[in-house]
Amino acid sequence: MRIAVLAHEQFPDRAKTAVGILRYGDQDVVAVLDRDSTGTTVGDHLPDIEQSDVPVVESVDDAPEFDALVVGIAPIGGGFEESWRPDVRSAIERGADVIAGLHYFLSEDDGLVALAEEHGAELRDIRKPTDDLTVAEGVARDLDAEIILTVGTDCSTGKMTTTLELVEAAREAGLDAGFIPTGQTGIMIADWGIPIDRTISDFTNGAVERMLKEKADDHDYLFVEGQGSIIHPAYSAVTCGILHGAMPDYLVLCHEAGRDAIHGYESFSIPNPGEVVDLYRDLADGVTSTELLGGALNTYELDEEASERAITEYERDIGAPAVDPVRHGAGKLINQL
Amino acid sequence: MRIAVLAHEQFPDRAKTAVGILRYGDQDVVAVLDRDSTGTTVGDHLPDIEQSDVPVVESVDDAPEFDALVVGIAPIGGGFEESWRPDVRSAIERGADVIAGLHYFLSEDDGLVALAEEHGAELRDIRKPTDDLTVAEGVARDLDAEIILTVGTDCSTGKMTTTLELVEAAREAGLDAGFIPTGQTGIMIADWGIPIDRTISDFTNGAVERMLKEKADDHDYLFVEGQGSIIHPAYSAVTCGILHGAMPDYLVLCHEAGRDAIHGYESFSIPNPGEVVDLYRDLADGVTSTELLGGALNTYELDEEASERAITEYERDIGAPAVDPVRHGAGKLINQL
Repeated sequence: MRIAVLAHEQFPDRAKTAVGILRYGDQDVVAVLDRDSTGTTVGDHLPDIEQSDVPVVESVDDAPEFDALVVGIAPIGGGFEESWRPDVRSAIERGADVIAGLHYFLSEDDGLVALAEEHGAELRDIRKPTDDLTVAEGVARDLDAEIILTVGTDCSTGKMTTTLELVEAAREAGLDAGFIPTGQTGIMIADWGIPIDRTISDFTNGAVERMLKEKADDHDYLFVEGQGSIIHPAYSAVTCGILHGAMPDYLVLCHEAGRDAIHGYESFSIPNPGEVVDLYRDLADGVTSTELLGGALNTYELDEEASERAITEYERDIGAPAVDPVRHGAGKLINQL
Repeated sequence: MRIAVLAHEQFPDRAKTAVGILRYGDQDVVAVLDRDSTGTTVGDHLPDIEQSDVPVVESVDDAPEFDALVVGIAPIGGGFEESWRPDVRSAIERGADVIAGLHYFLSEDDGLVALAEEHGAELRDIRKPTDDLTVAEGVARDLDAEIILTVGTDCSTGKMTTTLELVEAAREAGLDAGFIPTGQTGIMIADWGIPIDRTISDFTNGAVERMLKEKADDHDYLFVEGQGSIIHPAYSAVTCGILHGAMPDYLVLCHEAGRDAIHGYESFSIPNPGEVVDLYRDLADGVTSTELLGGALNTYELDEEASERAITEYERDIGAPAVDPVRHGAGKLINQL
């Protein structure tokens, strides 16, 4: 699928979805839309990305042919920016689909719906969960695939990135690995999935289980993107639902070096990562036992030497091998399988 | 409020909501509708209930004046039985509101909506959550009320009943106690509340927190109705969200004597209740620490002597005082406060 990615005024630093798709997606990106960086290429901003010669253009009109326009940025609150409308309309008028992971549903925008009907284009709201979800049957542990789940000490500790790096490393090692996305960026990268944080609470475990059932026959290893943290005052319900719905054989604990309090909830401290591992393991064991495969440490803020030291300390804390998957890939963890 | 309670062909044994309202509700019940038991009174079926002289009648036409008709039964799947429609229509035609906790929303039934508009009646679907919920702020622990949460080893272990018995015992002891309902029966009894199992998963913790914030200034003690179990393969997300959203000062663990596997998921065993307590406490501690106030044991299946033995054994397992709240009330647990 050929796609153009809308990332106006935010590429690359505040365009997590756009960068995720460029780095990990199977889609053929033909252009990034950012009116602030017109004339550059993706490689100018992200030297380590394969699709480095993708042009950054001002609008849909300057982009080569594509099958879908993907909204690759998400403002706080998940709203739709009216400044995007001309590009969205132009894409539809070219007959392309539009894919978005906003709280604002394009498929409920009367003007866009009418235009899409006229041009035979589809409006796909990734964040709109299907309404035929149900409660879990409790069968994930019986599926014919090894299940690996990333879990975190907090939100934004690199669970999606770690999961995708694990998939990549597994494939490099010759394993048949599949990715189970649970959040809107992961879903856009994979081009399928259920946004677990938007399901009805009673169906949280069941939604994860359903994705695993769908893919268990296709792969030997399924890597599930985790969400939130079991010690997060606001998002722990989702985390727990994923843990018990997925019934993982192995956990990978994701942590950011130096973070000692919940982001945005700073009066809640993060205990030693080793204690967090114990809690995840005990909670999993209440339903189905699991093992710690290893850890992923985000050391983005540290230099190489400090990063090495932090990883060594982290390995001691959690009692298992660890990597910074962005720096070194996740091969070391895959070797544990 | 004067209410009539619809419980056709199911009163009392399969009419949990009807019985809950009769036993614990503040409403003035003027009639129970059950065409199978016409001519009897509530006291004939439930000798221990205060409103014992409430007549069981065949239809709305035989009921004295009332302000609302409450659907007091819930078929598996939560559908609307067409055989109820004549009574629902008659109630609306008398100008009464209709209150239901079904998955089928009366307020989306065109025929009933039109009739209700004509007669100035309101159709209230308890299970329809408000759409202005949001994520938790993590503030329940700062509220000016002691928070007590019932938790369970499984679903249907008596959490709602225990919570209501705790409220009753607290009030008898002169404490200013409020009830925080989280399920449809509790909400119908209390005539307010958010159905926690129907919220968007990301807002589970926040929905509980919101109810506590609303009531914290009104009471010294808030008793929160728990849901599911932290070791339940399907419903643990909701349980975890309530635990961390409520940040309880005290837990009361509810268990059914002799149950050793998850109901409906029998391949998942229930460990010793003492281990379940430890898991709840550790999980709570990850956010805010809590204490075990005591245990509630459902000994409905046992005779008096076996019940006493089971309670003693349960107390030893959990290391705290326990009661069967239906047999003996919850005063013994309130004494621990």
